Amino acid sequence: MGDFKHLVIAKFKEGAAVEEIVKGMEKLVAEIDAVKSFEWGQDLESQEMLRQGFTHAFLMTFNNQGDFTAFLSHPNHVEFSTTFSAAIEKIVLLDFPAVPVKPPK
Amino acid sequence: MGDFKHLVIAKFKEGAAVEEIVKGMEKLVAEIDAVKSFEWGQDLESQEMLRQGFTHAFLMTFNNQGDFTAFLSHPNHVEFSTTFSAAIEKIVLLDFPAVPVKPPK
Repeated sequence: MGDFKHLVIAKFKEGAAVEEIVKGMEKLVAEIDAVKSFEWGQDLESQEMLRQGFTHAFLMTFNNQGDFTAFLSHPNHVEFSTTFSAAIEKIVLLDFPAVPVKPPK
Repeated sequence: MGDFKHLVIAKFKEGAAVEEIVKGMEKLVAEIDAVKSFEWGQDLESQEMLRQGFTHAFLMTFNNQGDFTAFLSHPNHVEFSTTFSAAIEKIVLLDFPAVPVKPPK
């Protein structure tokens, strides 16, 4: 059975304090044990036409969907979401059980 | 130093042979050594409003950007991309060096 993933892709508003927001997210996942792992990245524009304005990807991994649900309703997450939403111009969220085709060696 | 990630989120056209396409992608990554790991998933609609019609996420991991560039120009990838593009209603691609904040234990 694969992990459960919470994927966020975002474009921040002009002038948003992106660095501060990312630090806030790093703090958030450090505080909440249910988050098994967390990686993020900023797109390199290697295929700029296809990124459609989105610049950042945030990927959280949970052991199961229950842990993800617990994370969603955690007070620290609820609080952070307000800050995050205010800084976002556009966003897509996908939540899915991961199918590990070629697992990391 | 983190890995290099290639993230694709997609909405397939009505009637697209999604299962077949996913199998094609699984075959592709099995054939190309430069792809270090590959996971995908189908969104559960837990936050339906925020998925904005996108249904699938595909995440490939490479040891470095050079391996990703080699993958992009690999003939099997070029061939598969044609099939994939024809089945897609909308898509976003993000390519980024991953910042591993909370690495998997």
